[in-house]
Amino acid sequence: MAGAAPSEEALRRALAERQAAVDAQAEAVRSLKASGAKVGVDAAVEALKALKIEAGAAARRLQAAVGSGGGAAREEMRQAVGNTLERKLFYIPSFKIYRGVAGLYDYGPPGCAVKSNVLAFWRQHFVLEENMLEVDCPCVTPEVVLKASGHVDKFTDLMVKDEKTGTCYRADHLLKDFCKDKLEKDLTLSPETAAEFKRVLAVLDDLSREELGAKIKEYGIVAPDTKNPLSAPYPFNLMFQTSIGPTGLSVGYMRPETAQGIFVNFKDLYYYNGQKLPFAAAQIGQAFRNEISPRQGLLRVREFTLAEIEHFVDPEDKSHPKFVDVADLEFLMFPRELQLSGEPAKLTKLAEAVSKGTVNNETLGYFIGRVYLFLTRLGIDKSRLRFRQHLPNEMAHYAADCWDAEIECSYGWTECVGIADRSAYDLKAHSEKSGVPLVAHEKFSKPREVEKLVIVPSKKDLGLAFKGNQKMVVEALEAMSEKEAMDMKAALESNGETNFQVCTLGKEVVITKKMVSISMEKKLEHQRVFTPSVVEPSFGIGRIIYCLFEHSFYTRPSKSEEEQLNVFRFPPIVAPIKCTVFPLVKNQEFDDAAKVLDKELTAAGISHIIDTTAFLSGGGTQERTRSVFLLQ
Amino acid sequence: MAGAAPSEEALRRALAERQAAVDAQAEAVRSLKASGAKVGVDAAVEALKALKIEAGAAARRLQAAVGSGGGAAREEMRQAVGNTLERKLFYIPSFKIYRGVAGLYDYGPPGCAVKSNVLAFWRQHFVLEENMLEVDCPCVTPEVVLKASGHVDKFTDLMVKDEKTGTCYRADHLLKDFCKDKLEKDLTLSPETAAEFKRVLAVLDDLSREELGAKIKEYGIVAPDTKNPLSAPYPFNLMFQTSIGPTGLSVGYMRPETAQGIFVNFKDLYYYNGQKLPFAAAQIGQAFRNEISPRQGLLRVREFTLAEIEHFVDPEDKSHPKFVDVADLEFLMFPRELQLSGEPAKLTKLAEAVSKGTVNNETLGYFIGRVYLFLTRLGIDKSRLRFRQHLPNEMAHYAADCWDAEIECSYGWTECVGIADRSAYDLKAHSEKSGVPLVAHEKFSKPREVEKLVIVPSKKDLGLAFKGNQKMVVEALEAMSEKEAMDMKAALESNGETNFQVCTLGKEVVITKKMVSISMEKKLEHQRVFTPSVVEPSFGIGRIIYCLFEHSFYTRPSKSEEEQLNVFRFPPIVAPIKCTVFPLVKNQEFDDAAKVLDKELTAAGISHIIDTTAFLSGGGTQERTRSVFLLQ
Repeated sequence: MAGAAPSEEALRRALAERQAAVDAQAEAVRSLKASGAKVGVDAAVEALKALKIEAGAAARRLQAAVGSGGGAAREEMRQAVGNTLERKLFYIPSFKIYRGVAGLYDYGPPGCAVKSNVLAFWRQHFVLEENMLEVDCPCVTPEVVLKASGHVDKFTDLMVKDEKTGTCYRADHLLKDFCKDKLEKDLTLSPETAAEFKRVLAVLDDLSREELGAKIKEYGIVAPDTKNPLSAPYPFNLMFQTSIGPTGLSVGYMRPETAQGIFVNFKDLYYYNGQKLPFAAAQIGQAFRNEISPRQGLLRVREFTLAEIEHFVDPEDKSHPKFVDVADLEFLMFPRELQLSGEPAKLTKLAEAVSKGTVNNETLGYFIGRVYLFLTRLGIDKSRLRFRQHLPNEMAHYAADCWDAEIECSYGWTECVGIADRSAYDLKAHSEKSGVPLVAHEKFSKPREVEKLVIVPSKKDLGLAFKGNQKMVVEALEAMSEKEAMDMKAALESNGETNFQVCTLGKEVVITKKMVSISMEKKLEHQRVFTPSVVEPSFGIGRIIYCLFEHSFYTRPSKSEEEQLNVFRFPPIVAPIKCTVFPLVKNQEFDDAAKVLDKELTAAGISHIIDTTAFLSGGGTQERTRSVFLLQ
Repeated sequence: MAGAAPSEEALRRALAERQAAVDAQAEAVRSLKASGAKVGVDAAVEALKALKIEAGAAARRLQAAVGSGGGAAREEMRQAVGNTLERKLFYIPSFKIYRGVAGLYDYGPPGCAVKSNVLAFWRQHFVLEENMLEVDCPCVTPEVVLKASGHVDKFTDLMVKDEKTGTCYRADHLLKDFCKDKLEKDLTLSPETAAEFKRVLAVLDDLSREELGAKIKEYGIVAPDTKNPLSAPYPFNLMFQTSIGPTGLSVGYMRPETAQGIFVNFKDLYYYNGQKLPFAAAQIGQAFRNEISPRQGLLRVREFTLAEIEHFVDPEDKSHPKFVDVADLEFLMFPRELQLSGEPAKLTKLAEAVSKGTVNNETLGYFIGRVYLFLTRLGIDKSRLRFRQHLPNEMAHYAADCWDAEIECSYGWTECVGIADRSAYDLKAHSEKSGVPLVAHEKFSKPREVEKLVIVPSKKDLGLAFKGNQKMVVEALEAMSEKEAMDMKAALESNGETNFQVCTLGKEVVITKKMVSISMEKKLEHQRVFTPSVVEPSFGIGRIIYCLFEHSFYTRPSKSEEEQLNVFRFPPIVAPIKCTVFPLVKNQEFDDAAKVLDKELTAAGISHIIDTTAFLSGGGTQERTRSVFLLQ
């Protein structure tokens, strides 16, 4: 371990020990002075000074380790990028002349061009390359769809209110800010308290409403703007609600994701694809989340463009024929084990991650590889890109595995793409709610013999015994699983009767042998009917673009070296303007030549600027154009 | 006039005369029979038969002229197109498994590809070709913006309710349906009543809430589904309302058009463009209208994609340097005069329409020409495309001129693009509401001397005279127009005092000479400050695509001549699949060659299908692909 940096805990402990030594020595000096002793006072004061210097050094070492110094540099970089982006109209706070709306941004001309280039490349890289079925569904969504998907009940954040002003805050954000702030700035924290705050940060996403409320109370957290007390946390649904049609009776929401539009169309798309699996559908479109108090600029917004893929696959065969194309890729992976043991992300070969089972299956692995290629070809720095696996408690209960492509920017590691194996959850939920089976069929080349459970209730005997409740008992009998049925069969054969819980009646009834016949019968099956699994890569386009801006940004001195120039160095596929034509001399001949070039570039679909002003206005426009739109 | 078809009115009159003759003769026959006469009865009956035949022929001629026969053919064509589109997943009623939502449609894979092709061509033809500044603003819009634009107060349709069931209908639609139905199906209408119904149809858009209600009452129109009585009409705002943020206090709407996002950014865009006019900004995005009862399939929907251009221009110079490029175009134009005189649209040279003043200015003319080129290059049949000028009462009061590109489809002539000179209305409205001046500057090469009105109220004298009302009087004096001020000056000079209406006080006050000094002073001005005019071409992308589907559609017999095949013949730029590769023989070598082609086509960004199933499944897929995606 020689040469390894001491842990933050060791630094805290060292600081605490040195501070204790300072306190003890200060006490000793005071006692000496109070006793009127002459001898030893000077030496004791010198010792106190030396201890204070040591404690100061320990405090600086801790400060450097907890990194609020690095935070300042990040903040500065973020400001420089943000100012340049806003000054050059890459983006504009929406409705600025009306003082804007938090969490809403416009893309100005160059930003809009970058976005359109990113989406065009996405279509090329995913939709075209994989023959995906692209669809385009409305944003306005009736309640029933989002009830089935779980969004109406569960798409919430916990909110607390300033009890006097009514201002709303996200409860977890307040707790997070409190803990981070303490860890970064309060050097007197005991290692135990520091460890407790770290534990809270680690399990933040996992805290229940009650636990979150208890922590806020325990730490005495108040409203950041007013220092007023806060309400207990309560859930706030993040969907924008509206009403469809004139009656006011039909509740609708602005979709929180584009995926549901694909799921509800599964049946048609499956037929369109010739009833063959696997296939993928894709959608690019706006999604909406009514954030409680948006911050982090372009990263957490109330309306954003999502690009989502739903790749439907047989749950019994998640191999992918094109996995070989990406198997040799090597990049930073951050599986569960590394996260839990506190180790950093590690360069890993994709083939190895899949063969070792770190990544659940080939199809998931294939998309991780394709996402890596997509992002790095766009210009994302591969040393600041990692694939982080969700921790078990982070993942939806139905998900088989989930990896986020995280890009490092001035806000830290930022989730930009989620790649999840969602199993059959969504299709099953919509099948149930709509009554339309969303399933696939595997036709057998020759029929297969299978054993099937057959339950035949005797309606006559059940009717005599249960009268008006007969229907509920029949349904409960028919709904038994294979195990339940075989247990009942055994009980009836040995005892002649058995107790049976009927949920819809809320009580147990006694079933006798003659009331039901249970058997396993051999049957010939011609096909297998199953609900496909879905692997979902979901891209937050705005976040990717923002990280791209940061990764493409640098400053260099101007020619006169009098000022710093801010430069975005974009790869050609991303650059908003592909080229600028500068006539060298201001005369008609050169202007005419520029016009010809203009026409030809337009016809070829190449975005460009003809800058004939450089020689009139002294180069201002020219410098602007060059400094912002430099191509690699 | 030889050979001209008789007018509908003449046909109605002829039928009414013949019907009267039938009635008279029938009466004569009855009298003859009643009188017991033997002689002449047979002859009279024969004459009655002959008259009935004549009346029948007259009825058929009228029926043919009012065209419900043509309606049936149109209806059949619409069904054939609609069925093919839906079967091939060009579009899908949204949320179909939940029985859908009226007015919401998904684009399925080929529809989505067509849409994306149309938008790409729009960007190429307008944004790139004209160096427009493209922006991308959110759909969620705070109330203040749409209050300024007038949408909160005026973006309404008049609605009536079934008084028993509460079902809502658009009042004008009910009246329109009633009149059209009568005109098409009731052959016994007197020419006068028919003329009245026609007049109502012509002024339908112009009827006030009260007039509409009175007509519905007068005609005894009831709820079409239940025959229940209807409520009086009342306005219903067509915007989807929502709430921004968690407090519920901040009202927002889903934007009803994309234009406002451009207007509120005018200042930044003008600076971005180097403070030069003219320039255009453009936006493609979703817009939302909560229609009362959507019908007409894909033509009237609750969410749709708009592509809008706002071309900002000096109101004193609306010439366009590139007008020469479109001046020689000749197409169907339908100016006001032709509409009012009942003549049809006429082939007109654009240069002539502008030079004669039919089209208000060159810039407007230029965009009309560019829209014509855009639509016809997409594949719109130029004989079924016309540019119709708005009638004076149809146009917003602030608009200088307005033309709709109308495309004929099975629903009749359909507005697909609106091209309006909206003068300075929008920028002025947002300047006023936001307090941020949205203006342009023309710097003079040398300062100009101008006369300026100077009004200096004497606050002391006004204060003595009006006490607490002083401020209102001062403001009213300062707000006088040049004419009002000079009139006051003259009155004060001749009479020493004058009456003056102060609106904010709601009364007249007496102004004496010493209360205000009014003069015209010469000043040097270095620039002219003005609000630009805006010419707005606004494209309903979904409507254009639907008309394109109809214009590209035809049927032909299959090779075996057993069935009709439905075919869309798209131009290459629109076609969803540019080519299909069919290996001629099923073997590895051909499959490998197909894979190489696949990679190369993908790399070139050409959408395609590799169809290796044709020889396995007997050509089903092949026929499907060929019949739907035929290229010109």
